[in-house]
Amino acid sequence: MTFKVGIVGATGYGGGEVLRLCAGHPAFELRYVGGGSSAGQRLGDHYPGLSKYADLVIERWDPDGVPDLDLLFVSLPTGESAGSVARPPDRLKVVDIGGDHRFAEGWTYGLTELWPERIAGATRVADPGCYPAATLLALAPLVAEGLIEPTGIVADAKSGVSGAGRGGGSTFGFADVNEDVAAYGLLQHTHLPEMREALSRLAGRAASLTFTPHLVPMTRGILATCYGRGSATTEQALEAARRYYAGRPFVRVVDRPPHTKWALGSNLAFISYAADPAAGVVIALGAVDNLGKGAAGQAVQNANLMLGLPETAGLEGAPLWP
Amino acid sequence: MTFKVGIVGATGYGGGEVLRLCAGHPAFELRYVGGGSSAGQRLGDHYPGLSKYADLVIERWDPDGVPDLDLLFVSLPTGESAGSVARPPDRLKVVDIGGDHRFAEGWTYGLTELWPERIAGATRVADPGCYPAATLLALAPLVAEGLIEPTGIVADAKSGVSGAGRGGGSTFGFADVNEDVAAYGLLQHTHLPEMREALSRLAGRAASLTFTPHLVPMTRGILATCYGRGSATTEQALEAARRYYAGRPFVRVVDRPPHTKWALGSNLAFISYAADPAAGVVIALGAVDNLGKGAAGQAVQNANLMLGLPETAGLEGAPLWP
Amino acid sequence: MTFKVGIVGATGYGGGEVLRLCAGHPAFELRYVGGGSSAGQRLGDHYPGLSKYADLVIERWDPDGVPDLDLLFVSLPTGESAGSVARPPDRLKVVDIGGDHRFAEGWTYGLTELWPERIAGATRVADPGCYPAATLLALAPLVAEGLIEPTGIVADAKSGVSGAGRGGGSTFGFADVNEDVAAYGLLQHTHLPEMREALSRLAGRAASLTFTPHLVPMTRGILATCYGRGSATTEQALEAARRYYAGRPFVRVVDRPPHTKWALGSNLAFISYAADPAAGVVIALGAVDNLGKGAAGQAVQNANLMLGLPETAGLEGAPLWP
Amino acid sequence: MTFKVGIVGATGYGGGEVLRLCAGHPAFELRYVGGGSSAGQRLGDHYPGLSKYADLVIERWDPDGVPDLDLLFVSLPTGESAGSVARPPDRLKVVDIGGDHRFAEGWTYGLTELWPERIAGATRVADPGCYPAATLLALAPLVAEGLIEPTGIVADAKSGVSGAGRGGGSTFGFADVNEDVAAYGLLQHTHLPEMREALSRLAGRAASLTFTPHLVPMTRGILATCYGRGSATTEQALEAARRYYAGRPFVRVVDRPPHTKWALGSNLAFISYAADPAAGVVIALGAVDNLGKGAAGQAVQNANLMLGLPETAGLEGAPLWP
Repeated sequence: MTFKVGIVGATGYGGGEVLRLCAGHPAFELRYVGGGSSAGQRLGDHYPGLSKYADLVIERWDPDGVPDLDLLFVSLPTGESAGSVARPPDRLKVVDIGGDHRFAEGWTYGLTELWPERIAGATRVADPGCYPAATLLALAPLVAEGLIEPTGIVADAKSGVSGAGRGGGSTFGFADVNEDVAAYGLLQHTHLPEMREALSRLAGRAASLTFTPHLVPMTRGILATCYGRGSATTEQALEAARRYYAGRPFVRVVDRPPHTKWALGSNLAFISYAADPAAGVVIALGAVDNLGKGAAGQAVQNANLMLGLPETAGLEGAPLWP
Repeated sequence: MTFKVGIVGATGYGGGEVLRLCAGHPAFELRYVGGGSSAGQRLGDHYPGLSKYADLVIERWDPDGVPDLDLLFVSLPTGESAGSVARPPDRLKVVDIGGDHRFAEGWTYGLTELWPERIAGATRVADPGCYPAATLLALAPLVAEGLIEPTGIVADAKSGVSGAGRGGGSTFGFADVNEDVAAYGLLQHTHLPEMREALSRLAGRAASLTFTPHLVPMTRGILATCYGRGSATTEQALEAARRYYAGRPFVRVVDRPPHTKWALGSNLAFISYAADPAAGVVIALGAVDNLGKGAAGQAVQNANLMLGLPETAGLEGAPLWP
Repeated sequence: MTFKVGIVGATGYGGGEVLRLCAGHPAFELRYVGGGSSAGQRLGDHYPGLSKYADLVIERWDPDGVPDLDLLFVSLPTGESAGSVARPPDRLKVVDIGGDHRFAEGWTYGLTELWPERIAGATRVADPGCYPAATLLALAPLVAEGLIEPTGIVADAKSGVSGAGRGGGSTFGFADVNEDVAAYGLLQHTHLPEMREALSRLAGRAASLTFTPHLVPMTRGILATCYGRGSATTEQALEAARRYYAGRPFVRVVDRPPHTKWALGSNLAFISYAADPAAGVVIALGAVDNLGKGAAGQAVQNANLMLGLPETAGLEGAPLWP
Repeated sequence: MTFKVGIVGATGYGGGEVLRLCAGHPAFELRYVGGGSSAGQRLGDHYPGLSKYADLVIERWDPDGVPDLDLLFVSLPTGESAGSVARPPDRLKVVDIGGDHRFAEGWTYGLTELWPERIAGATRVADPGCYPAATLLALAPLVAEGLIEPTGIVADAKSGVSGAGRGGGSTFGFADVNEDVAAYGLLQHTHLPEMREALSRLAGRAASLTFTPHLVPMTRGILATCYGRGSATTEQALEAARRYYAGRPFVRVVDRPPHTKWALGSNLAFISYAADPAAGVVIALGAVDNLGKGAAGQAVQNANLMLGLPETAGLEGAPLWP
């Protein structure tokens, strides 16, 4: 059985990764590709290696004229999907990779591993941001099981440059970004409310965290290094995570600091812990590919559940190494 | 129907890529992993993302004690496979990714697109080197169809650092190699005889070329920029290549300069041409992933043909972008 | 007036940077270069661009046979300088860039800006580690002025690969390290005691911190992102730092997140702050070139003061951009 | 004695490097900085590490209102300096780093080492392009001494991304350019006429070459690998170059393939040769920093000669390593 799927925003980095995953998906039939300024162009001109869809032509995205599909992936810059995406008819399932519908009314928050039972029945799922994916996967077991206080958490995250999206302009020009590390968006990053909300739900009371994103000179990958207050040991933290993620196919709990490269090109998330009970500190580490578990892989995982497919369909490719 | 395969040298970059491709191959059942200093270790310790084979233990490679397999991939540093690999029983098919058996007696040269008909019946196939793969795929149509002279060719190639293999030591340390480009092995690179031999066969007479390899600061990818003498036009060169590679699933003839990144993680090769008939110069460009079409992808492609499988089995994954 | 200086360990990254700075120093005359396995080689073979010293030959380092010098820079891997360096005669001033003498008896801790008055009269100065340089410069004003608690500090630091030194082997090979971020040495990094000691001195009572180093894919640069508990505002933190570093020529207090690249090739340190008084959190950021203010630049700055020279002699070169 | 200098286009990469060199120059007093969209801004906002000029304000560039200066550096995108720069009064010496006046009437071509005697008396000097600097320095001795034919030369050049200038946009975005190598501008690069003209002058007859530029993922550096026809030996080529560049302070003739990194941040050029007399091929290699000898360093070198200063004034800083 196959499902008809479509993608809006396929020339961005996140949309392009959805395309790649669709091309290898056993049950997806790509029927529609929508865009804005790229409308009218062939996909093959954008993605010379994506032979399967080379002759598909990008159509101008019009929320009132969506073709007959089972599911639509929306990968538009935050701010551009709100409103327009709400209009597709209810029979069309939607996964929004952008940031407009996270914890919005009528939308299910799609960090699958946290509340997987909600995804299956949903028709509108909002993918988490790439930073929240890495951060929440590392913190969730600790917060849910009460191993750290849900307040006063520090999340220090390092992202590759593709996380900024394709239209970044000279701010993300190679010569400026290469051989440089810097923090940005101090105390005010757009992903902060989403993380606070998710942690509060997990804790059952108001959570608070300080979140600092950093740009590092690589293309893909996010590492979140989180610091919580609690007296758990390293082994207790690892055990809690192994229980929490038992049976979840994409989360690997490991006993050494994870490398972002372990996840390159895959939907995997690697998490680990190190605790100093004397100091009352638990370090939680989460590593993902920001375009995989942090965007397109996560979106396909949600789509699989929404369509009644195996969770891992089309997502079993092993990461690239080196 | 499945075939039992094994890999010798699976902790190197080329062998690791064979592992990754085997994990996604519909007809390969990995039964054996051999190594030297890594014998006794779990594959999962080397490749945290390669879940499928995590518990497979590396055995000490012994050419006299090869288990019952249909096909063995050998990915050892050049110089280490000669002799030992010749000993496996004839019923065991062998693809040697290393450099010891190219144009050697009893071995078929496995740049599939050049002489595909020879691969199917072979039991011993020697993969081409990564530089020859990119260079020969670009030059073959021109030389075979007489559009350039087979002598006096210049091949100027640029390779990512993984081409040097994993045991490179501090010569290939990040801080030394990053932000640097240099040529090496001037006039004496080990891949030169192989290219000369292949071009001579294609031309039907003695070919000669000057080959200059360069190291560039990236992990994967090879671009060969070749210069031949001839009066063909750009369009004639492109047409010749389109004819020459008609029906070949992994070679893309494109009409603009190819990027190595177009092939990242795939078995694709992109080739293009630009000619200046007034000057009598034809430029041929070939771009591959040195670990894909330049090593492991090429090896699996050969294995498919040797085992009677579709040429593209397990090799249909689209390249990673960006 | 010129001073005769020497360097032990000049073929490492830190020692090489001392060489570069000596070549441009108005008052240093390089008379001696010592090494181990590199003894007998010309400096020009190691540093093709260092024309000034091309013909200087590396001598075998022997602590009992140090020639007549005013000052010796020692840049040996931690563990190799202890003992041997203690033996040079007292009239020979020593700056140890390695890690063996930080807060050791008879040695002055050489993070110049913290206790500059102690450097001038010292004959044995131990350079701070590269991580402590970035971390302590950012934290010192807050701790010294009581704007944050000296306990429970989190320091999350990101370093370029040259910080691991030249002999790193394949662990720091390009293909492994490129396109990857990871933490290491969780809760046990060798620089931790040094930072705790310095912060305790500044606070006047026992300080404690959690320190997590990370490797990022760039050659040079360290960014320390530190989190302290306190109710100061951003402006109060910035003001405290401006006061604390008033007149210090190499520390720049800036009002936006600093980039490591701003310091590339220089002895500059950039620090900044962002505070959330409601949450009781102050973020302190410090960015340096790990081979500049984090090693060789810092060493020359100390040497200048020890020899009665202007603090900035030979260190006024502007950073490279881009 | 000091000279009053100014810079137009100081927020671009080339202009920024001129600023850095002026800041360390013993005889230059920077009096004027002109720009377009950046007019009114402080230099310190663009270059946080360039303390010396932090408070200098960028003025709107107006060729009719140039202040009283001894020499003006013009670093505008090619196409923008033609005309406007011709207007400054004759008493104002001009070095144009952009591409509008190379081999133009009234302008001296400023690849200093080729025709140094012409620079001293000139009031209008056009810097060579970055590709021609690397290519011509490698080829000049061979062509001038008749060791290779001046026709049919192949120059295959690899450049870091800063060579494309600061305003490149998303084409040069990090995620697109990183981990990629590609050729561009086949058979039609803008620097080709300049190289042909210079080689023809050196040969005394019409020269011809095929030039292929490539973009490689690094910030700075150009390597030109050139192939000429001739029967010289490697040693003859090296000897010719040593004679040709005898006494020239910035050109290093070396006997192994040069690395671009050897020149990083300096005005040095490294050249080398390898010949195959049996095949009649001579390989000439030239490595420079595209912003050093390929732009700003070259400009300061010319300015020194035009003003009667020592050729090396302000250019003696050793390259950064690593």
